[in-house]
Amino acid sequence: MTDGLVIVSEEVCQQVVGRGDAFTAVEQVFAAMARGDAYNFPVIREAIRHADALYGFKSGFDRAGLTLGLKSGGYWPGNADKGLTNHQSTVFLFDPDTGKLKALVGGNYLTAVRTAAASSVSIAHLARKDAKVLGMVGAGHQSSFQLRAAAEQRAFEKVVAWNPHPEMLPKLGEVAAELGLEFEAVDRDRLGAEADVIITITSAFEPLLMAAQIKPGTHIACMGTDTVGKQEVDPAILASATVFTDEIAQSISLGEAQHAVKSGQIRENDITPIGDVINGTHPGRSDGDEITLFDGTGVGLQDLAVASVAADLASKSGAATRVAL
Amino acid sequence: MTDGLVIVSEEVCQQVVGRGDAFTAVEQVFAAMARGDAYNFPVIREAIRHADALYGFKSGFDRAGLTLGLKSGGYWPGNADKGLTNHQSTVFLFDPDTGKLKALVGGNYLTAVRTAAASSVSIAHLARKDAKVLGMVGAGHQSSFQLRAAAEQRAFEKVVAWNPHPEMLPKLGEVAAELGLEFEAVDRDRLGAEADVIITITSAFEPLLMAAQIKPGTHIACMGTDTVGKQEVDPAILASATVFTDEIAQSISLGEAQHAVKSGQIRENDITPIGDVINGTHPGRSDGDEITLFDGTGVGLQDLAVASVAADLASKSGAATRVAL
Repeated sequence: MTDGLVIVSEEVCQQVVGRGDAFTAVEQVFAAMARGDAYNFPVIREAIRHADALYGFKSGFDRAGLTLGLKSGGYWPGNADKGLTNHQSTVFLFDPDTGKLKALVGGNYLTAVRTAAASSVSIAHLARKDAKVLGMVGAGHQSSFQLRAAAEQRAFEKVVAWNPHPEMLPKLGEVAAELGLEFEAVDRDRLGAEADVIITITSAFEPLLMAAQIKPGTHIACMGTDTVGKQEVDPAILASATVFTDEIAQSISLGEAQHAVKSGQIRENDITPIGDVINGTHPGRSDGDEITLFDGTGVGLQDLAVASVAADLASKSGAATRVAL
Repeated sequence: MTDGLVIVSEEVCQQVVGRGDAFTAVEQVFAAMARGDAYNFPVIREAIRHADALYGFKSGFDRAGLTLGLKSGGYWPGNADKGLTNHQSTVFLFDPDTGKLKALVGGNYLTAVRTAAASSVSIAHLARKDAKVLGMVGAGHQSSFQLRAAAEQRAFEKVVAWNPHPEMLPKLGEVAAELGLEFEAVDRDRLGAEADVIITITSAFEPLLMAAQIKPGTHIACMGTDTVGKQEVDPAILASATVFTDEIAQSISLGEAQHAVKSGQIRENDITPIGDVINGTHPGRSDGDEITLFDGTGVGLQDLAVASVAADLASKSGAATRVAL
């Protein structure tokens, strides 16, 4: 990059950052985290008592990728009525050699892409190679990103899906059709019985899938739980599964594992950073009947990693705006 | 403001933000903090183990001024050799109604100006009206900002100054001369004996002024201590003074008061937010012999307040850059 601040708009992010770029960036940063080369700083999250908003930032430093910065933003529930996205994020990248602001990158699209990349990395490293049926629990905005990213990791033939609001399922079905995948809206018993890989991507506060519904050999990526109190699956599933996560500290405090840890069904030591599998220091899935579970809590370093890719690609293609600061 | 992201460079900040603007912004936000209308979020500060840098952010929300955002940056000790400022800061402001990024403002000049505004607000509200001699302890980059701002608050006639490195004093003397003030480099006994108002602005880790050196009626603004372990004055001065601060939580943990609180010479309850004086809920100085001390720790809301003024003034004058995000 030459001098000046690089600005990458939401539109340019969508043009330049593909799923493959996000996959590689997230896989690399998970690996760096597990090696101790990258770490997340404490998360700031504040209910500001204005517009019912939750505001805060996630930040960190990747010494291997030399990526330093933060994602700032939050959740403004009244935005939809104004024609805006309720989640608003912007990523700021700094030069780790000088501290100067280097890039400003729209974070809304990238947040969806990096979250999908995380479950996709977990599927690549943990799902059975012969997985054929993908189960989707959740059919909101984020679910189609998850489906597209997951579909690239295994030779899936069919998607079985369930959502608390069934009227949202046809839209996810359209994405499946576009990907050449059979699609069926099912109840949760059938979903668990058929799916080889399950992605949960809801904002639930109660278990949506019970241990008895899951068959041996399943890989489950729990992507919705990112707050104290949220929950997507029965803690007994974690007790019977080999549990992986992006960051253990978040997994046990605000991720899906919070409940199983609190009830004593698993301990912190039972959870493995997925980066260990990527780095080859943990073997990952040991046999075909093992249930593996990835607790995707979402870390700032994921945001920084994909934003850094966006800034590089937008700079190279000339799509970035440059301003003096 | 119309649509789009407002960008205010360091140069434009220097053009548009005057000392009077900074004074008003900082006074208002200190008042809002004391009323409970504005609060600072937890501070993030990380030694990133790269380039010996300290990196972090200060952030907050002013519900009265509707200012939401953060100052990001830190200290890169190798920057001076590269022709850059060691301290690097950028302020980001968000629309509290939608969470959208509203402005990006260079923070280096503004940090100096807002720190000077804080001591200046304390002098305006706490120093004797008849103060004639200003004592300066410290003669680094920040000291001239402090001197210029202080000089506007009382009819000072003379500056007495001391610095651990005396060779830096003539530069401060030039600023005094420019302001029409007599200037004398003195030892600390004379400084304390002559000064009616004292500003300490060093990065000391030991008391530079002892209680016996201070005369009755003095107002002292301790502006250098912003970290655990730093110290500028004898804790006995705080024990004999009426102590004010920007934010009590910082004052007792990392401000000048940390030492007097730790040694039991004062308690948290002995410290008053300066905003209470601004709001009229605390009378401030009660008589001419009282020693008043302002512990200026530096809060994120100060940065946001002056950056908000910079964005408004630069937008109005057409000096801001606007980009789509």
